[in-house]
Amino acid sequence: MVNVSGAGAMLHALRDRRPRTRSELSEISGLGRAAVAQRLDALLAAALLEPVGEAASTGGRPPTRFAFNPSARVVLAADVGATHVRLAATDLAARVLDSEVIDVDIGRGPRHVLGWIVDHGRSMLRRIGRGPEELAGMGIGLPGPVEFATGRPVNPPIMPGWHGFDVAGFVGGRLGCPVVVDNDVNVMALGERYIAFSDVDHLLFVKVATGIGSGMVIDGAVRRGAQGAAGDMGHIHVPHESDAVCRCGNTGCLEAVASGAAIAAQLAEQGIPARSSRDVADLVLQGSVVADQLVRAAGRMIGEVIATAVSLLNPSVIVIGGSLAMAGESLLAGVREVVYQRSLPLATAKLEIVAAVGGEQSGVIGAAALLCDTVLAPGLVEAELARHEPRVAAGR
Amino acid sequence: MVNVSGAGAMLHALRDRRPRTRSELSEISGLGRAAVAQRLDALLAAALLEPVGEAASTGGRPPTRFAFNPSARVVLAADVGATHVRLAATDLAARVLDSEVIDVDIGRGPRHVLGWIVDHGRSMLRRIGRGPEELAGMGIGLPGPVEFATGRPVNPPIMPGWHGFDVAGFVGGRLGCPVVVDNDVNVMALGERYIAFSDVDHLLFVKVATGIGSGMVIDGAVRRGAQGAAGDMGHIHVPHESDAVCRCGNTGCLEAVASGAAIAAQLAEQGIPARSSRDVADLVLQGSVVADQLVRAAGRMIGEVIATAVSLLNPSVIVIGGSLAMAGESLLAGVREVVYQRSLPLATAKLEIVAAVGGEQSGVIGAAALLCDTVLAPGLVEAELARHEPRVAAGR
Repeated sequence: MVNVSGAGAMLHALRDRRPRTRSELSEISGLGRAAVAQRLDALLAAALLEPVGEAASTGGRPPTRFAFNPSARVVLAADVGATHVRLAATDLAARVLDSEVIDVDIGRGPRHVLGWIVDHGRSMLRRIGRGPEELAGMGIGLPGPVEFATGRPVNPPIMPGWHGFDVAGFVGGRLGCPVVVDNDVNVMALGERYIAFSDVDHLLFVKVATGIGSGMVIDGAVRRGAQGAAGDMGHIHVPHESDAVCRCGNTGCLEAVASGAAIAAQLAEQGIPARSSRDVADLVLQGSVVADQLVRAAGRMIGEVIATAVSLLNPSVIVIGGSLAMAGESLLAGVREVVYQRSLPLATAKLEIVAAVGGEQSGVIGAAALLCDTVLAPGLVEAELARHEPRVAAGR
Repeated sequence: MVNVSGAGAMLHALRDRRPRTRSELSEISGLGRAAVAQRLDALLAAALLEPVGEAASTGGRPPTRFAFNPSARVVLAADVGATHVRLAATDLAARVLDSEVIDVDIGRGPRHVLGWIVDHGRSMLRRIGRGPEELAGMGIGLPGPVEFATGRPVNPPIMPGWHGFDVAGFVGGRLGCPVVVDNDVNVMALGERYIAFSDVDHLLFVKVATGIGSGMVIDGAVRRGAQGAAGDMGHIHVPHESDAVCRCGNTGCLEAVASGAAIAAQLAEQGIPARSSRDVADLVLQGSVVADQLVRAAGRMIGEVIATAVSLLNPSVIVIGGSLAMAGESLLAGVREVVYQRSLPLATAKLEIVAAVGGEQSGVIGAAALLCDTVLAPGLVEAELARHEPRVAAGR
């Protein structure tokens, strides 16, 4: 068996997309010239690396440079919502190759929904001309709390029949690949970080749509808490005169007064037809002053909670996403107003508060990124190289 | 040079204080018998391990077992407050060997205060009969934000003259050892975890004294945020009729209405003499109904903020410490009342809210634990073994 120890660290370094020479790879891995050559052979045979161009010569034959080859495998990603699933195929750099939206009611239970996802995933692979053996894995975001280690939902309020279901096992068994499952807001947080803030280690993503939730990147990784319930911003208590009852049964929850659903209800009470978070955003974009004022007021209430999160977590970037964030600057303006007023200078001096940039795609990109981070971890890469070594060697 | 690769992982595993046989160490490190013997030699020569008793024999000569030897080195730890410093010497398991409290005004600046700490630290080492070459390092907790990577305070409000001062370099240069510096509440959080919750990966420590602050263990490590300002609970806004002005200039900060200082002021207004957080705690313990009611009300306000932290972070343990927590159950009762009412069942089903157990010592124990975790990290241990190998070998 070929020794592949150190190959994982070499690949990990190359994921920054900068090509390296053999001597640079020797420096990164701490391995000698012969060992680097051996690891390179294994990674090239697995197509995970490819030779690209040549480095500037220092005299003599210019050294070859090697780069990560994200096209070596394909990844499936699903962002599951209450009424539809966004499905995508990406490369190993989470770049979307194809995507589609499937209408499916989450209330029909995990076997039905996940069966559809598996079927459509297989079709998508065929459509883009990739075989099942090229599939590195699948990342899935679900709209409820998930026990990340086991890939099982935990008492998800809007997902009847999903509690404790082995999502990773069900999908992984059918597709024959590793599957990672996380909360939808966590994968959106990862997606936004992957797209626009790859160098940011402390990021808070807040989704404002029908409900309100958040995902936290702390010290470079998504943090999920003791039971996977971290980031549950929607049921934080905010002072408010209305005492609206929340779907959780408590009163005064942020979600009950500042979510897209809450604003739609407030508009409907005033005789302005609005049934959803998207309707509210549309009204604002069409110039409704009342809708605009309500969204800005919601931004202030969300800002109160975010100000608390800033004091507790000291992030450097806050990203506001979800359908209500598409209503232009009003929501963000309300958030900024309160956060910069309420938080201490040390925590806000370098704080950016921005709108999400990934749009509808940030969920699938984040789910794909989560899968890539999992399967491209150095230990797994080396296990994979060691396992396939005979086949790879035979093919050369 | 002897190859010590894997020795760090062996020592790391043995820090759980359970002795292991050679074959168990081989399993832990993935090394063969000869390599384990070589790493054992290096660790025994450095006195970091010691042979202890014998394992149950499976026939033939019973195998020797090896245990971590925390007495191999000594650690200094300082918990710096506004008016005094608690100094301690511990072993490599953060067990206190000696401790003392030195009166020193933090306003006299870093050279004065740290000079005292160095002098008293040297005296303490002499007193317990340990030489400077046995000193593994020093851990220091400071009452203000600290940039952990560099060991420098960042605009600490109650520490004039300390901003940007190279605390780690100043102390390390004089004592000739590694020095780690952190916020005092972070080291208290670590201390409480070390003493009572070593298996808990999600812990929130809240200190309620003159001010209010918190330290967060998330996924097994203290999290400090982008600028080291994480956990700044005292200036979070809470709804309150008084609109008391906080020392930060804002109104409605938690600290301005629920800290020991705030309650002392409220008592003094009612003609009950109290000047400090400790006076308030004493009044409660002496049976003052008014003081007890104010402390419980403060507990409820602190509980509002903790409930938010529970929704955001989903910890499994919340530890309440500081001088006001010494006033019996009133503070904790107020906190529990609100947290269990406000947070969602998933986040509170397994949540413990407890009083701190480390008392005055948790700061120095945490600072020592932080130093031990730093210098006993596998990479550093192996670098140290490799560096001293000739000397160690010569001494055998």
